[in-house]
Amino acid sequence: MLMYTDDLKSLCWTKVPMTQNINTGQGLRDLGEFGLIDLIARKSRPSSAVTIGIGDDAAAFHLHPNCLALATTDTLLEGVHFDLSFCDPARLGRKSLAVNLSDIAAMGGKPLSFLLSLAIPETISLDFLEAFSSGLLEIADEFGVSLIGGDTCASRGGLVIGITLFGGQEVQKLTRRCTARPGESIFVTGYLGDSALGLKLLREGHRDGDAISRHLDPAPRVHEGLALAESGLPCAMIDISDGLLSDLGHITGKSSMGARLYLDKIPLSREYSEYFGSDDHERYSLALGGGEDYELLFTAPTYRKCEIEKLFRNFGTPVSEIGEITAVPGILVLSAEGETVQGIATGYDHFLPRDVNRS
Amino acid sequence: MLMYTDDLKSLCWTKVPMTQNINTGQGLRDLGEFGLIDLIARKSRPSSAVTIGIGDDAAAFHLHPNCLALATTDTLLEGVHFDLSFCDPARLGRKSLAVNLSDIAAMGGKPLSFLLSLAIPETISLDFLEAFSSGLLEIADEFGVSLIGGDTCASRGGLVIGITLFGGQEVQKLTRRCTARPGESIFVTGYLGDSALGLKLLREGHRDGDAISRHLDPAPRVHEGLALAESGLPCAMIDISDGLLSDLGHITGKSSMGARLYLDKIPLSREYSEYFGSDDHERYSLALGGGEDYELLFTAPTYRKCEIEKLFRNFGTPVSEIGEITAVPGILVLSAEGETVQGIATGYDHFLPRDVNRS
Repeated sequence: MLMYTDDLKSLCWTKVPMTQNINTGQGLRDLGEFGLIDLIARKSRPSSAVTIGIGDDAAAFHLHPNCLALATTDTLLEGVHFDLSFCDPARLGRKSLAVNLSDIAAMGGKPLSFLLSLAIPETISLDFLEAFSSGLLEIADEFGVSLIGGDTCASRGGLVIGITLFGGQEVQKLTRRCTARPGESIFVTGYLGDSALGLKLLREGHRDGDAISRHLDPAPRVHEGLALAESGLPCAMIDISDGLLSDLGHITGKSSMGARLYLDKIPLSREYSEYFGSDDHERYSLALGGGEDYELLFTAPTYRKCEIEKLFRNFGTPVSEIGEITAVPGILVLSAEGETVQGIATGYDHFLPRDVNRS
Repeated sequence: MLMYTDDLKSLCWTKVPMTQNINTGQGLRDLGEFGLIDLIARKSRPSSAVTIGIGDDAAAFHLHPNCLALATTDTLLEGVHFDLSFCDPARLGRKSLAVNLSDIAAMGGKPLSFLLSLAIPETISLDFLEAFSSGLLEIADEFGVSLIGGDTCASRGGLVIGITLFGGQEVQKLTRRCTARPGESIFVTGYLGDSALGLKLLREGHRDGDAISRHLDPAPRVHEGLALAESGLPCAMIDISDGLLSDLGHITGKSSMGARLYLDKIPLSREYSEYFGSDDHERYSLALGGGEDYELLFTAPTYRKCEIEKLFRNFGTPVSEIGEITAVPGILVLSAEGETVQGIATGYDHFLPRDVNRS
């Protein structure tokens, strides 16, 4: 970024020492850009796979031998993707990486390292940044990924968090969206709709509970995605970020297929079921059309169901068969009575008006 | 992103077809998120090195054999990094990638592919996005890099452009910041200060001229950086983004060295020299403290100067020897008379007040 000065008072090269102690009362202006990078870098663990980490023009890292490089990026904007009155900074840090981990999981990849971009408004305190980076690097440690670089700047709008995550996998083990075939069963991990319910509860003024935790601190299915890919079980796979119908639509669209879904097989948590009671339309709208579940949605031959269930028992992660892939385009949702269910919304589009998205 | 609906009117899976024609009068709301991705994707050329490009959870790509993966990211914010009243969208697209290309050049790497994140306010038109993506993918073609993925969302603040660029290089050819040694000469490509002068002229109401072009459409020294790395000439290298003194400070700081700079050897363009006249303080403040030159700054043994000059003659790119690395920490700037020049500002820090940065 450009600066312009006509004030020639002192020549000394001044930068924030990389070993400076951070006082929590200190402001971002006292800390400076390099101090902030240091604040985050000091929490980050070195990795033998990373040849050059934070502090050069670019990061450099080895991939495992015979490995394809995988890369995914997600930018989270204050007021669009998160509301600072709802979320504490540590869980925001965790979620920022989790949404990217979920993308690598959906490819059946092993996550390796990531870059962090932060645009920070003046209203953000050092305490906030300490907690944010602690949460971020805590989940990074949990999944064995290293922070290897990034950039920081001041924002004149809200907080902007950009993460690019790298992973690796052998080409023949990658799980794509475009490879579903007719007759395959459709499986989903965990429970659906809890994250959307959590957001609804937050907006109603609640601050605790399982659904709210699922929304603020989702668990990416990294180990499950990798184990599925290693076993060669899935034919197509995606993570549910936009909503079940929308993301299943990505699989059927990319595969030039259709799908049948059985409403009574959609996995719902106890909290979710209790909240919505027995009205099916109320009950299933968030589970099918809500987003940010970060569960894995995949197709596999029906005869391999037992293998799949066994694999998931090892993780203690629920898995449900919820429908099948068809050769006829479009997604049919069927009730327990076998009737077509009309009119369930299809997911979030960032450029549609709020009243269409019902965000 | 979450959506919430209790309106169960229609079930059909609707998405914008990937082959849709874009009418320039069309709004972003008509186009939708997937239409926008398609608008950009259609301009992008496929590459044999990219196994999975746009349209899956993550991109997957091969590196050249025996190659380290390089990665760099830069986020450009409206109102911080660019002013839409100064820059046309095509040059903004070019510059967004150029600043990342310059980072890979500084590592001596070959740029390969990139991810694009866009957060777009309602005020941005489709015409703007067409021109932006044309400029972006034009410079991508010039340097042989492929767009392989990214994300898009609506912004409630200004336009946010995030790019993560990947490259590759053999580990022994990488050019680092931390490897300068005493006695090495310091070289810089091109002319310094033009970009900062261009910004000053834009703020004064001018809209044309070489300095303004240098600011709005900088030329990353990718071929030069790669050729230097392949020849094994540089001992340490960085690109000048924050300003000569600031970026030289990164080399001396990371290498635990100091430097002497000779003011009369700093390369200045004719437009720059004519603008500032003979007052040395005025004349050199932007060349030493301004930023966004995106020239290469490197150190090399003095006896290899002829080889370096020969290499740069092939590119038609000026190269100047401007000083030397010393064992004593700190950067000394010396006048033509050999006197120490006091008080030239050291570069831009995003978290310092504007009056300190004089931005």
